[in-house]
Amino acid sequence: MFEVIAFDADDTLWHNEPLYQQTQAKLKLLLAQYVPAEKIEQHLYQTETRNLPYFGYGIKSFTLSMIQTAAELTAGCIDGSEILEIINFSREMLDARLELLDGVQGVIELLARKHQLMIITKGDLLDQERKLSRSGLAQYFPFVEIVTDKTPETYAALFKTHRIDPQSFLMVGNSLRSDILPVVSLGAQAVYIPYALTWAHEYEIEHLQSKRGYHQISQIEELPELIKRLSA
Amino acid sequence: MFEVIAFDADDTLWHNEPLYQQTQAKLKLLLAQYVPAEKIEQHLYQTETRNLPYFGYGIKSFTLSMIQTAAELTAGCIDGSEILEIINFSREMLDARLELLDGVQGVIELLARKHQLMIITKGDLLDQERKLSRSGLAQYFPFVEIVTDKTPETYAALFKTHRIDPQSFLMVGNSLRSDILPVVSLGAQAVYIPYALTWAHEYEIEHLQSKRGYHQISQIEELPELIKRLSA
Repeated sequence: MFEVIAFDADDTLWHNEPLYQQTQAKLKLLLAQYVPAEKIEQHLYQTETRNLPYFGYGIKSFTLSMIQTAAELTAGCIDGSEILEIINFSREMLDARLELLDGVQGVIELLARKHQLMIITKGDLLDQERKLSRSGLAQYFPFVEIVTDKTPETYAALFKTHRIDPQSFLMVGNSLRSDILPVVSLGAQAVYIPYALTWAHEYEIEHLQSKRGYHQISQIEELPELIKRLSA
Repeated sequence: MFEVIAFDADDTLWHNEPLYQQTQAKLKLLLAQYVPAEKIEQHLYQTETRNLPYFGYGIKSFTLSMIQTAAELTAGCIDGSEILEIINFSREMLDARLELLDGVQGVIELLARKHQLMIITKGDLLDQERKLSRSGLAQYFPFVEIVTDKTPETYAALFKTHRIDPQSFLMVGNSLRSDILPVVSLGAQAVYIPYALTWAHEYEIEHLQSKRGYHQISQIEELPELIKRLSA
């Protein structure tokens, strides 16, 4: 039934959000002498949100927002060596060990035998490519699409480029806003696998939505069984 | 003869490098009290080159390299307000007026009638999409591929995804390293249109290469005539 099964990557195939939260903790420590931690968290989130239309998603964008936050909250008192530390955070993020979610390796291997698998992810182009290459999963994904946003238009354009019939398409991801609702709105099916930690920006929409139109499981190991049922 | 004609974007369809050079001039002015201008140019280029494998191409990457250069060259003396100015440079770059090269509009309109046109460009995902949308050219390019690097492997993968026969593919661009040589190595044809200003990194290879295997013109207006000759 499903010709193409597409996966979100960050926090669906591999852990990602914890890395951002750990880095945010380092920033709080670095700025502890200037500003209380809560203030940093709040200001950073506002800065990220404001910068999103300019800088998009990903580590470089996050790093620029951290630097901006540090400069603004310290009223200019931050000095060059502290700025270099923040730039260094970004290198540590880019080099961080990649950890797959439990069960991913086996499920992807299994599904790749019968379906064409695809990755559809937001974020920095280079960073996502580097992560995929280090994940050991690249061989299972003949198509990888890195996009600036995941709107219905984004998915519609991908369907066109890859000549995909929405009826035969299944999307799997951890964000209702980005992975599930836009896909469902195009008449395709989607499987929602919530992740323990969710970035506030992705989370905003979650509580507003009912579960109609998509499937929800608690871990990826349940996916092959669900696909079998849906294809029956 | 040519089913698909692909174009590089920056400095092939629209001016780009002058924006980087203007921004570099602003950085020199900002740091004039700390460091002589030549030292900034040299250090920035080294930093960009060193950061390339981490940050890739584009304005965000360039901005992080500017910030790093400023912090390193001022031995930490740079302060938060100056850092914010550099971040502001990047917003100005992202919002800069887009200017097409002479003749681009007419030539693209003309070629789009008979060929499938494509853009293949490096850089920040979001920035390139924004530029394309502001260029007024998006309607002529059903396919836009933003890639992290332009190696023979990159082009081979695109040929596969889009089911392109290299024999019927023509690439047009201003960088021998990125647009011309990798394409020629795959048996496709390429047209080199040098741009007045070229980033040192793209330039390095230029003087090493003979002209065999590709075509060179001095402005895009000559392209339709060349294509006619090649297709005869």
